[in-house]
Amino acid sequence: MFFEGSEKKIELSVKAGVGSLRALERKFWERTLALAGADIVSVMSNSYCDAYVLSESSLFVWERKILLITCGNTQLIKAAFFLIDELAVENIASFSYQRKSEFLSHLQLTRFEDDVQQLRTRLPGSAYRVGHLDGHHHYLFNSDSYDIQCPSSSLLMYHIKGNVADYLRQPTQCKSSILKQLNFAQWLPDFDFDDHLFDPCGYSINGLSGERFLTMHITPQAQSAYVSIETDINDDLKVIQLFSSMLAILQPDSWDVISVNQHLAASDYPAHVEVAHCDLALNASNDINFKHFTQRASDKLIAQVL
Amino acid sequence: MFFEGSEKKIELSVKAGVGSLRALERKFWERTLALAGADIVSVMSNSYCDAYVLSESSLFVWERKILLITCGNTQLIKAAFFLIDELAVENIASFSYQRKSEFLSHLQLTRFEDDVQQLRTRLPGSAYRVGHLDGHHHYLFNSDSYDIQCPSSSLLMYHIKGNVADYLRQPTQCKSSILKQLNFAQWLPDFDFDDHLFDPCGYSINGLSGERFLTMHITPQAQSAYVSIETDINDDLKVIQLFSSMLAILQPDSWDVISVNQHLAASDYPAHVEVAHCDLALNASNDINFKHFTQRASDKLIAQVL
Repeated sequence: MFFEGSEKKIELSVKAGVGSLRALERKFWERTLALAGADIVSVMSNSYCDAYVLSESSLFVWERKILLITCGNTQLIKAAFFLIDELAVENIASFSYQRKSEFLSHLQLTRFEDDVQQLRTRLPGSAYRVGHLDGHHHYLFNSDSYDIQCPSSSLLMYHIKGNVADYLRQPTQCKSSILKQLNFAQWLPDFDFDDHLFDPCGYSINGLSGERFLTMHITPQAQSAYVSIETDINDDLKVIQLFSSMLAILQPDSWDVISVNQHLAASDYPAHVEVAHCDLALNASNDINFKHFTQRASDKLIAQVL
Repeated sequence: MFFEGSEKKIELSVKAGVGSLRALERKFWERTLALAGADIVSVMSNSYCDAYVLSESSLFVWERKILLITCGNTQLIKAAFFLIDELAVENIASFSYQRKSEFLSHLQLTRFEDDVQQLRTRLPGSAYRVGHLDGHHHYLFNSDSYDIQCPSSSLLMYHIKGNVADYLRQPTQCKSSILKQLNFAQWLPDFDFDDHLFDPCGYSINGLSGERFLTMHITPQAQSAYVSIETDINDDLKVIQLFSSMLAILQPDSWDVISVNQHLAASDYPAHVEVAHCDLALNASNDINFKHFTQRASDKLIAQVL
């Protein structure tokens, strides 16, 4: 009952005049994903974006931007090199590569430091670790040209519990019931969704509303219970409401909120303690901030028999 | 500036009539330690115990009991097999093997699960993990015959800060000044001490008072800052005073208190939140309890440039 939900992420935008990334054939994305060790399980599109649910997380392709997220034991760094080389360094306007610390990092095929050493042979940039080695920590590499016009935020939830968490571990679960229990319709009535239920468990959902996206991935397995939501909704209040609602529904023991060019108040979150925080200026016009919270009540740990 | 302070630990006692473990020659302990990858740097003795400061942690030898603690990349499991085989399974009254989750577990040569699989070929026993995989967690294996007559407690401190922590990172530090700043004399006037300062930093101290022991190991290196204290002082109030004093002096961001057959109140600790706890009955007459605390204030993380 272990699955590594912790994500790796590429955000890449191309310069104006390079041509639409959406014009690239599905075969191109399949080749990219195969290098990482993932494949496409579902796709939805609107006038702005093609959103793919993957065997491990999600891919979003806009005209000038790609957001590619993978989890498990994927080697996203291989997809990164392929994309940089195929699209050509001189056409890349902004590039970032991130990794969340894994539950079982020794099972990963590469480490972030190695990935960055290779990335730097293609693209100059800055690399950071935020958070202590003995707790949740986040790795990021940003090209010197890094520039994200749009705010975005992620909510990472660890060790979910309660009725919905229990339901997500049942063999009889179904997509429509999960979607209803997550209650997206209340907070995001203008979004269209495409979701996928994995066997024996695990749930991924992509959402689109005009240019805006949302993606959520649920790893309910008890030992590695982890849920991530990421969105570029630029209405802070809407994001806070969504995140607060998810925290109330999924009742994680602890959670991270990571925001790029966005500052979210935590006051609506369930009873919590802010354990740690970091504000990091990436360059003159982009900043990222991290906050780690735990629930207010002491977590009663059950000894795992080995 | 990284050193893996996280410890592995063997506690082994022999049956009455087996003969004194203290009669074993220093060569025997050197052989044992060499298998793990450690050696003796200092020794002190009293009528009850021989206490060795090691290149990686400590060894205590009483007439019928051994406590062997190692850190770094040592393979304590190899020393465990040697001890079990040399002393003979039928002579062993009680055996336990523990590992604290490491800061960088991928650098370790074996994993706890592998160690236990091998241990079980020699000794039947129970194995547990306490704590989530994505946070501090503790592994323990106890032989079916496990029986510790005496209470004991450990305080594990993570990410120390303040004046004393800063001093411990300075190239000009000296043993006598560290001992004075730790203020053992106030709380443990009846203990004799033997300490060692490592180059470029790192400090170990063993203490003895009659049959009672204390051992403390300081890894001040910023990325892996970790301090452990373990003692079998059976006066709860004295232990609480000692731990509270150490917490005030070393100002860790978070800490664990792990007690065997002892229950310590946390009220005197600096402003804190109890994040998690676990009570585990090991058998009819032995229990272990774990508590994880964080300081009350949000930790301001500094992004580590890579």
